[in-house]
Amino acid sequence: MKLASLKNGGRDGALVVVSRDLSRAARAAAAPTLQAALDDWDRCSPLLRAQAEALEQGEAGDAFDLAVGDLAAPLPRAYQFLDGSAYLAHVERVRRARGAEMPPSFLTDPLMYQAASDGFLPPVGTIPVASEDYGIDFESEVCVVTSDVPMGVGAEEAGDYVQLVCLVNDVSLRNLIPAELAKGFGFLHSKPRSALSPVMVTPDELGDAWRDGKVHLPLVTTLDGERFGAPEAGVDMQFSFFELIAHAAKTRPLAAGTIIGSGTVANQDESLGASCMAEKRMLEIIRDGKPTTPFLSFGARVRVEMFDRAGHSIFGAIEHAYEPYRR
Amino acid sequence: MKLASLKNGGRDGALVVVSRDLSRAARAAAAPTLQAALDDWDRCSPLLRAQAEALEQGEAGDAFDLAVGDLAAPLPRAYQFLDGSAYLAHVERVRRARGAEMPPSFLTDPLMYQAASDGFLPPVGTIPVASEDYGIDFESEVCVVTSDVPMGVGAEEAGDYVQLVCLVNDVSLRNLIPAELAKGFGFLHSKPRSALSPVMVTPDELGDAWRDGKVHLPLVTTLDGERFGAPEAGVDMQFSFFELIAHAAKTRPLAAGTIIGSGTVANQDESLGASCMAEKRMLEIIRDGKPTTPFLSFGARVRVEMFDRAGHSIFGAIEHAYEPYRR
Repeated sequence: MKLASLKNGGRDGALVVVSRDLSRAARAAAAPTLQAALDDWDRCSPLLRAQAEALEQGEAGDAFDLAVGDLAAPLPRAYQFLDGSAYLAHVERVRRARGAEMPPSFLTDPLMYQAASDGFLPPVGTIPVASEDYGIDFESEVCVVTSDVPMGVGAEEAGDYVQLVCLVNDVSLRNLIPAELAKGFGFLHSKPRSALSPVMVTPDELGDAWRDGKVHLPLVTTLDGERFGAPEAGVDMQFSFFELIAHAAKTRPLAAGTIIGSGTVANQDESLGASCMAEKRMLEIIRDGKPTTPFLSFGARVRVEMFDRAGHSIFGAIEHAYEPYRR
Repeated sequence: MKLASLKNGGRDGALVVVSRDLSRAARAAAAPTLQAALDDWDRCSPLLRAQAEALEQGEAGDAFDLAVGDLAAPLPRAYQFLDGSAYLAHVERVRRARGAEMPPSFLTDPLMYQAASDGFLPPVGTIPVASEDYGIDFESEVCVVTSDVPMGVGAEEAGDYVQLVCLVNDVSLRNLIPAELAKGFGFLHSKPRSALSPVMVTPDELGDAWRDGKVHLPLVTTLDGERFGAPEAGVDMQFSFFELIAHAAKTRPLAAGTIIGSGTVANQDESLGASCMAEKRMLEIIRDGKPTTPFLSFGARVRVEMFDRAGHSIFGAIEHAYEPYRR
């Protein structure tokens, strides 16, 4: 099933079930918000599935046409967002771009940071940034959302806790990163609010593209209407979502509604393009000795989307224009 | 006024107003949970104040005797916990303990990390840790809780957004920190769930001890019944809560219910004792060349509390025994 949250003037939106083709929706009867559904997933998910099935069959009495502009983030605020960095091609390129080494331990010990979860941008709209000097960038990623995960869970059992899958544009302020990481305390200023995809879907919606804790489909990023990259999310993912969950839960449980990010999707095969500007710039540095593509200017439009093998959008498109922030 | 959350079998507890002496409580009429009150603070806070005043006067009809064991964390889960490190005496000692330098920029640029907020331990009970080898430690801190803070707020206006004050034991797994910080992505395994004080209080409850965005009272930590330290929280705090909030909000807004931590309270005057074991060990290294006090063993009991100048506990005591984690 596919789930989303309608803007309703509140902080958490109103949960809706969404048709597979993303065209129709109906207010969820089982829970008022997605967080409430995740809090009581065993009870709610069969009810939501039944309602989604009725919608699919044209039998949901209160169904309506869905406009993406009416959607909030599926989780407009969440209790936790842990963003991994599982595609080592990305890690290696970005670290080379800032002159940092890649330690061998990165092959066995996942990178992951505690990210801002107190607010996610609506899936379409604008992203306010105070200054272009911050080095505005995007990072196209896949995420999973968990139910309650016990402390110390192993990767082999982590799949039981994956309830939903979505995409994210992990907005990044590239010029603020080196100074922050040098302090050792992770990202704060350099990773402001992110944007989730219009809908979240249960893993079964992905069919056989969901296997081994990875999504085996290309993640398509478009910049100003031009294809920017479409690397395969199932390729070169050094740590599966199952391994990322086990990593996250090593010393503590994870509350229902925890979002786990894959990190920027990137392949060793450069011909498929990139999922962030930093990588494109790094390849320019390797080729030309310096980057020729600047970071984003205000007005730049970034679109992130994933299609099934038949060409249908699975999660809807994340699409934003970056704009100057005015208080 | 003083606010707390009763355990009620749910995830967020039931909001109560608490008497100044912490002995009596009454279910809040204005909002079911503290997060709900913070989400609608302008409407709820006068209603809660009126109810707290009635309780103080013995005029709250449904008041009951309060047992701290019946309390959940005041915010059992929060959308954001940003923990600063504003006491440079602590930063300097801990960094010396792990052989790291203190850059001069630390005098002007606050250290702060995105901490786990998806669950806070009840104020009294046990803290489960998988292994003593993790280097179990505590960090006694002061926190503030904000209403919605706009992006780019200045320190001079940040006080408008401070709604509540509390204490935290920021549970720390000291032996896991060096490897995590070396990765640059901040704390994940080394900072599991923390414990908030039994109650949160509005700043006016602190009287003139709340000024300049600091709490001018000693923070008392007891280990196994012995006084461990009582440094002055208003002394040597390099960055006030106002400055910490401005730092946090530089590139993004902060959602209502954001918790901002001071970092481990520490004074340059060593005679007042410490608020974590790592500092005590550091002072031993300076004196003896090596630490003689081990990190905590299972069974160790840590108590964190703050008293007003008349000797009354303001927030109640955080008190836990560390115990082995069993799934």
